Amino acid sequence: MKFLEKLDSAAQRNQSQLCVGLDIDLSRLPKKFLDTEDPIFNFNQYIVENTCDLVCAYKPNIAFYEAYGIYGLEALMRSIEFINEECQVPVILDAKRGDVGHTAVAYAKAIFDIYKADATTVNPYLGYDAIEPFLNYQDKGIFVLCLTSNKGFRDFQTAGAREPLYISVARHVVEWNHYGNCGVVVGATSPEELKEVQKIVGDMPILIPGVGAQGGDLENSVKYGGKRAIINSSRNIIYAENPKKAAKALRDEINKFQKLRN
Amino acid sequence: MKFLEKLDSAAQRNQSQLCVGLDIDLSRLPKKFLDTEDPIFNFNQYIVENTCDLVCAYKPNIAFYEAYGIYGLEALMRSIEFINEECQVPVILDAKRGDVGHTAVAYAKAIFDIYKADATTVNPYLGYDAIEPFLNYQDKGIFVLCLTSNKGFRDFQTAGAREPLYISVARHVVEWNHYGNCGVVVGATSPEELKEVQKIVGDMPILIPGVGAQGGDLENSVKYGGKRAIINSSRNIIYAENPKKAAKALRDEINKFQKLRN
Repeated sequence: MKFLEKLDSAAQRNQSQLCVGLDIDLSRLPKKFLDTEDPIFNFNQYIVENTCDLVCAYKPNIAFYEAYGIYGLEALMRSIEFINEECQVPVILDAKRGDVGHTAVAYAKAIFDIYKADATTVNPYLGYDAIEPFLNYQDKGIFVLCLTSNKGFRDFQTAGAREPLYISVARHVVEWNHYGNCGVVVGATSPEELKEVQKIVGDMPILIPGVGAQGGDLENSVKYGGKRAIINSSRNIIYAENPKKAAKALRDEINKFQKLRN
Repeated sequence: MKFLEKLDSAAQRNQSQLCVGLDIDLSRLPKKFLDTEDPIFNFNQYIVENTCDLVCAYKPNIAFYEAYGIYGLEALMRSIEFINEECQVPVILDAKRGDVGHTAVAYAKAIFDIYKADATTVNPYLGYDAIEPFLNYQDKGIFVLCLTSNKGFRDFQTAGAREPLYISVARHVVEWNHYGNCGVVVGATSPEELKEVQKIVGDMPILIPGVGAQGGDLENSVKYGGKRAIINSSRNIIYAENPKKAAKALRDEINKFQKLRN
């Protein structure tokens, strides 16, 4: 199924714009998982089983798996396989890749054919030919980094003369959207800028990280994120004492703001 | 040993500014390697044994290994281990990572502690805090993408008002060089811009890809790349009928241009 259909269908079915970030940190896993032979997969399975009727997407960030070496990446693969088989919720593998054309072909192959993700994030710094091999997977979703939620975003993303760099990126993504499979990433930490970007990209899905630990503005992110806003929360859900309850509470809060908006 | 000392020492010992890119493509490997149980490692071992007295660095790009799944990454690890044990030549693991602070910590751990590279490449789009966790590995080398060798580089890197983005990146890298472990990446495809960047970064190592397959200008890259220019060539060396001969010829050509410069 196409990523966009899978996303819309999960969002509708679960009445949810919440994306749960599966960012593994063994030092924060409950002891009962650490005592098993396969802690990463077992923990992800537990989170997914408790939240799959509450979310529109899952977003594992590959960095947290790669940091545990071969076992981490192998557990990531099995976790994605589990989600693909057990629930109709798309997986956005957050990898922020960006490399020259023939190298980008290899990265796209890894993300979509090896890890079997439904969508991914890419870095725009290298320009179109670094993103084209991803776009050619017409059924997959490609989220281009636009304005990130970290402290350093002002170093380059907001610089520019006629317009800031992130606006130029947003305009390019609209041009690159031949197959209707593009999206953008805008941090919840910049709601005014999110509003501007949303006007440019229209109904494209906007992946919005940065609520919770990074202090983003949930209300205005929902207000300005458009009809396909995907609000991501990672550590505040998966390391909550009761992840199901935490996911439900955040989903409902998003829906409340969504209603105020309409 | 610090990356920079290891680089200078290999460059001096082998009288070489040549870096060989270990970009694995199984479809181009000679049959005698494909017939073994461990083709990636065996091929890399063959290339390294035939070139380790002719180069100043090796640069595997992780994308080409990740595209072969767990086996690829596992063979990459053993290839780096082999280079670390068998020859005093530094490994630049080309990964172009860039992510928010706590995720960048995980990526830096993967690159330096799991894969055990001496140096890596990073993407500047997210700004300082995406690069800081790498810089904190004071003995490692961090090459920040400045001006890349691909077609799409003009989409964003050369845009800007008072100065183009890549110049702003170069200036930031000079500021970030607290521990003397920074470098930049500038494609051989833009020799005039390389000249400008070299004036800004001085004696920092400049990794210069794009000669050979991508059509870069070797003579001017050597001329303008400064005393720590690292000229990378991948496919033209490793898939040559005689990689040793190809590496020696390119090293000698670089040295000839180097002498003309002095």
